Amino acid sequence: MTEGVGGLEGARVDVRTSRGAYTVYVGRGILSGLPGLLGSYLDVHRFALVSDENVGPIHGERLAEACREAGLDVTYLTFPVGEASKTRESWSILTDKMLDAGLGRDSCVIAVGGGVTTDLAGFVAATYLRGIPLVQVPTTYLAMIDASVGGKTGVDVHAGKNLVGAFHAPRAVVADTEVLSTLPRVERRQGLVEAFKHGAILDEEHFGALSSDLPRLLEADPDVSGPAILRSVQLKAEVVGQDEFESGYRQILNFGHTIGHAIEAASGYTLGHGQSVALGMLAEADVGERVGVTEAGTRDRLASVLAELLPSGPPSIRDAAVLQHLGTDKKMRAGRARYVLLRTLGEVDPGEAWTHEVPDRVVREALERVLSEA
Amino acid sequence: MTEGVGGLEGARVDVRTSRGAYTVYVGRGILSGLPGLLGSYLDVHRFALVSDENVGPIHGERLAEACREAGLDVTYLTFPVGEASKTRESWSILTDKMLDAGLGRDSCVIAVGGGVTTDLAGFVAATYLRGIPLVQVPTTYLAMIDASVGGKTGVDVHAGKNLVGAFHAPRAVVADTEVLSTLPRVERRQGLVEAFKHGAILDEEHFGALSSDLPRLLEADPDVSGPAILRSVQLKAEVVGQDEFESGYRQILNFGHTIGHAIEAASGYTLGHGQSVALGMLAEADVGERVGVTEAGTRDRLASVLAELLPSGPPSIRDAAVLQHLGTDKKMRAGRARYVLLRTLGEVDPGEAWTHEVPDRVVREALERVLSEA
Repeated sequence: MTEGVGGLEGARVDVRTSRGAYTVYVGRGILSGLPGLLGSYLDVHRFALVSDENVGPIHGERLAEACREAGLDVTYLTFPVGEASKTRESWSILTDKMLDAGLGRDSCVIAVGGGVTTDLAGFVAATYLRGIPLVQVPTTYLAMIDASVGGKTGVDVHAGKNLVGAFHAPRAVVADTEVLSTLPRVERRQGLVEAFKHGAILDEEHFGALSSDLPRLLEADPDVSGPAILRSVQLKAEVVGQDEFESGYRQILNFGHTIGHAIEAASGYTLGHGQSVALGMLAEADVGERVGVTEAGTRDRLASVLAELLPSGPPSIRDAAVLQHLGTDKKMRAGRARYVLLRTLGEVDPGEAWTHEVPDRVVREALERVLSEA
Repeated sequence: MTEGVGGLEGARVDVRTSRGAYTVYVGRGILSGLPGLLGSYLDVHRFALVSDENVGPIHGERLAEACREAGLDVTYLTFPVGEASKTRESWSILTDKMLDAGLGRDSCVIAVGGGVTTDLAGFVAATYLRGIPLVQVPTTYLAMIDASVGGKTGVDVHAGKNLVGAFHAPRAVVADTEVLSTLPRVERRQGLVEAFKHGAILDEEHFGALSSDLPRLLEADPDVSGPAILRSVQLKAEVVGQDEFESGYRQILNFGHTIGHAIEAASGYTLGHGQSVALGMLAEADVGERVGVTEAGTRDRLASVLAELLPSGPPSIRDAAVLQHLGTDKKMRAGRARYVLLRTLGEVDPGEAWTHEVPDRVVREALERVLSEA
């Protein structure tokens, strides 16, 4: 599947959406082809390249300069680092800066960074003049594996994370595995959890390969990171192609996330997203085994592999706080949280519209076990 | 085309979108069927009914109560009256109130009001948990004729009107012509301009019928307002069905709006949208005649009919201010404003992708004439 498109070498995955398909490019050093790709967009005359103040000096400025050398009109914008910047305020400021720069509807946002940047700059693109083109340049495992497919954009609000946003498919995603070398090791651990999730719900072989390659993946070795990212993107693209707006099948991607989000919130966001989801996967596998949906032993298989990616000590999180946050889950229906449950490793149980309602008692017991053992 | 659907009697127009079709219901007294329609949405368990503080006491509270009597769970929300409330701040406040009320993804926004309400509450629905269902209940001519079709939602920012927003198709639109009796006469004049625009670009017969019926339309006589709204909705639905996201053909709906928006902005928004667009239509017809695209005499035909809807005295707007605002038009391409030009009354010239570039001198001359004669 290696071919050159718009100056871009590398493997590619096409993601279907209701407004046409877009391509995720995955490869080593392929960012050198970005100016050529952008220059091929005949309907775009100006670009806003958005990075945070950490990734900007490492990658953003250099990319903006390369684009300018290729004759492109680039406005370079940055915002403060971190999840605390993923707000309506940052979104307003970036939007106003683009308006001040006179960027019209024939402009395109290039988001260069991790999930905070792709979510925030994506939401700017989704709402700027009611939506302009977007190119995602993810620089973390998490953004390459997860945020690159699905078109989710958004910001956090006081009531919780990602509660305001929009679906806005990018025109292209360029995932250059070389940039992962600049990624802190803790971020590598966080991001790889989502790849294991894709394996757990859809592809036992992928799960196995990730397990074997984990040491080299944590070293960001492009020889293993490229194929791992590519397979995860393919799996997610298949799911999203079937259910773009999360009305049914796509919910399987929430495996580990119902409880994971609640754990993350209950920790006051001191626990990372990946580690929270890893704990959530264990808890939801435990729930599945308790209600007889998930094959016995699945939780232990997950636990043995995810051990490397879990918090090093028992997280100081109270079960009660997690349960309380479960009551405000975004995906709840008719006031009740719902759970994606595995049938076995690599396969989700269809349940009712791919989710299950579970007695509170079972969730509480599973949580107690996971939080005490972690 | 009269039939009952979900308890709703009245004429209906189906609008195609990339995410399925929705129905615009037009009829006298049909709001009595609203609770039945909402109750038929099996995937929705809670509703947020949004009105401004003016329309709320007249229609919003009563509708919320009728829905509750029908067993629906309704959260009633209001915001301060006027275009000044169509901001990111109001959007944030409404969103946070809905989150505080615990409204999940199985909720639906019901927007009851004029264009400010349908745009603002529509943008809330478009971005709440990345988008939840929306039902529009327009209470003005403008909202029934224009905002009801096309899925445009958004807010104003310092740099201009509607510069932040999203396309978010409603699930249904319920336009009850009886509510127009509560609409101030000045608002009737403003709103009918858009109906004339639909006639001018697409249907000379519609234009003629509107002209003959104008006195009764200004009285909000349901016998003429129903058919007039219905025809405008049909015309707009055909256009939007061909080009949902304004990449091509849909731009014909901007006839009168390129210059109209600039006039509105140059007046500091003291001149209404409808009157500004009426002036914009005259100016753009004048431009069209000057560059030999529009049949001679078209401007005069428009002027004779629109006389009733124009500002009563010459507006105190400087040509220079209008020209400056034309430089920041949202639809400009490669830094230049573009114009939709009529070929003749009822027909748009295809131009290049339905728009024309025009020398600044011609725009200046047309503006001078229209602003001095108005």
